[in-house]
Amino acid sequence: MNFRRTLPEIRCLSPVCLMLASDPTMQPIRILVTGGTFDKEYNELTGELFFQRTHAGDMLRLGRCLLKVEIETLMMIDSLHMTDAGRHLILERCRGVPENRIVITHGTDTMPETAAVLGPELKGKTVVLTGAMVPYTFGSSDGLFNLGTALAFVQTLPEGVYVAMNGRCFSWHSVRKDKKRGIFEAVPRSR
Amino acid sequence: MNFRRTLPEIRCLSPVCLMLASDPTMQPIRILVTGGTFDKEYNELTGELFFQRTHAGDMLRLGRCLLKVEIETLMMIDSLHMTDAGRHLILERCRGVPENRIVITHGTDTMPETAAVLGPELKGKTVVLTGAMVPYTFGSSDGLFNLGTALAFVQTLPEGVYVAMNGRCFSWHSVRKDKKRGIFEAVPRSR
Amino acid sequence: MNFRRTLPEIRCLSPVCLMLASDPTMQPIRILVTGGTFDKEYNELTGELFFQRTHAGDMLRLGRCLLKVEIETLMMIDSLHMTDAGRHLILERCRGVPENRIVITHGTDTMPETAAVLGPELKGKTVVLTGAMVPYTFGSSDGLFNLGTALAFVQTLPEGVYVAMNGRCFSWHSVRKDKKRGIFEAVPRSR
Amino acid sequence: MNFRRTLPEIRCLSPVCLMLASDPTMQPIRILVTGGTFDKEYNELTGELFFQRTHAGDMLRLGRCLLKVEIETLMMIDSLHMTDAGRHLILERCRGVPENRIVITHGTDTMPETAAVLGPELKGKTVVLTGAMVPYTFGSSDGLFNLGTALAFVQTLPEGVYVAMNGRCFSWHSVRKDKKRGIFEAVPRSR
Repeated sequence: MNFRRTLPEIRCLSPVCLMLASDPTMQPIRILVTGGTFDKEYNELTGELFFQRTHAGDMLRLGRCLLKVEIETLMMIDSLHMTDAGRHLILERCRGVPENRIVITHGTDTMPETAAVLGPELKGKTVVLTGAMVPYTFGSSDGLFNLGTALAFVQTLPEGVYVAMNGRCFSWHSVRKDKKRGIFEAVPRSR
Repeated sequence: MNFRRTLPEIRCLSPVCLMLASDPTMQPIRILVTGGTFDKEYNELTGELFFQRTHAGDMLRLGRCLLKVEIETLMMIDSLHMTDAGRHLILERCRGVPENRIVITHGTDTMPETAAVLGPELKGKTVVLTGAMVPYTFGSSDGLFNLGTALAFVQTLPEGVYVAMNGRCFSWHSVRKDKKRGIFEAVPRSR
Repeated sequence: MNFRRTLPEIRCLSPVCLMLASDPTMQPIRILVTGGTFDKEYNELTGELFFQRTHAGDMLRLGRCLLKVEIETLMMIDSLHMTDAGRHLILERCRGVPENRIVITHGTDTMPETAAVLGPELKGKTVVLTGAMVPYTFGSSDGLFNLGTALAFVQTLPEGVYVAMNGRCFSWHSVRKDKKRGIFEAVPRSR
Repeated sequence: MNFRRTLPEIRCLSPVCLMLASDPTMQPIRILVTGGTFDKEYNELTGELFFQRTHAGDMLRLGRCLLKVEIETLMMIDSLHMTDAGRHLILERCRGVPENRIVITHGTDTMPETAAVLGPELKGKTVVLTGAMVPYTFGSSDGLFNLGTALAFVQTLPEGVYVAMNGRCFSWHSVRKDKKRGIFEAVPRSR
């Protein structure tokens, strides 16, 4: 197999590599839910979008996901309402949970800002933020695809804080949302 | 950022790491379509399932995927009908395409068998096979989730042949489908 | 209002007209479930279609239906397997239920045959058979639309046995399924 | 068959009855689109709902509808913005179109108000207003069910103006929307 032959050469001794070679080492993942379009629903009485509960569990079931995943709802807010206090709560929770691999579901509008708070502060953990442009409960949502990419990236990337959107994975320090086009793109690292 | 600080220590100089740090290096991905439940449709005249065309493009659009992806349909068959000749065609095509990162959509029933043909033969490329338990066009499909995981795994894993199902990624030499439960699981490497 | 002015002229004194003018007279409807494509599901372990339970209740909820509806599952079979005994069971049940307005969900392949058994025998009741070309649980089903038409036809048509498909309503004695095109069409009454 | 035996007795000589007995007399239906939740879409750039084009044609295709239907978009507005001028435009169009059977798609909030404008003025035509509590493009829409009921009611009811929601059909003069519960209900005829 290619795996063992090539890896020693590049000295990639990360837990990921070990995980892939052996089942019992499957690493647990924590999903921290913060809200965002991802989890919004349509209120048919008012015609407005609102939060009820996270759909992350439904999505994992739909994906027949068999990873060891713990889902925890930290807050349910539109990311335009995310405050410094909210971001520090997320940071503290990332530090506090036992898992070293964390997916954060987050509104897209300020996802890079939250990543930029976590990035310099968090050590020893792999954190991937993801979200959706369209609510999961609507037909045309990208949410299930994005959650799939986030769960794969979080298993395979080295420690650090990332944003997974549009099938891509960006480091926290080099990502922005182009709000006019509704897409995420890489930016040169500032400084 | 954790990224540069930590990576030199583990000497991970793979293209993945470079890709993540800089946009222009985004690596192209080839999707090779072979059929499978993933792409089956319901024939309302006969009540049977059949193949028409791949839905991979629709799925990438739904996922707002902005990766450089080329989709190529090699065949459209139920993987129970996959032959040695078919597997060698896939192998030759993996060798022949210019991309080093390849996702193969494949029926689940013999996905491990095809992976086991590619695994020992293919060098210098990262190949991820994926599929679905339920056709994409049906409401309850895992296909979009699986495609998301496959596209993320193929960007981040070192060269080798893998199977991405149930949110997990298995090396070609240590995976089997439990057909009674409809799930993929790791097996100890034979010999 | 047009209603009272016009109706006396045509002497339409059916319960329907009264129902529409006054809420408390809303007439109860019985849905008799017999199976058919309508209620088929995809078995992801075998790749075959099978019956589990009817989705009629889910569909009424999705349609925010507030009619007085009782759902009763008589059988769950492919209509190609419908026998004379099955049809006589349906006939007996139509006679036996207290409601005078009955919707029967039925496979499309032999729906006209069942209608032709009920039509000459059943008196004093309005019965509408409907079904679907694609299972409700698949994305592209006509089932919800058909159920909507059937429930409306059953409230407004005089006694008799009808088939509601393709947005249309056919009398039992002048309908056939064009199996090549997968549509229902009127045929001249056979004498 | 019950049909011919019973109908002469109640002197129901409406075109409906003739239509049901003979295919060539299938009466043409006009769908007048005015907007409403039915046709709203989610703007993933702004998170707001907006109008693009009507989905009535897609819905008829999904329902495998084979009625003679002409779709005409009169306006695309939230019914909270419907004005007297808008209602008179609808009335004039109902009078002007060649069809005697008309379905109007309309926002639910002021559907009874529009029906109450049309009801006393329109003669010789059967008009059914319908809409949806949830946009068709979202997963959980009642729109397809409602359109099915409206198309069936419009084929079978005598001339008059009706509202079709919740599986029921209300005369224009005895219907209101209970906005707290999001349902339509009969009210005693005023005066």
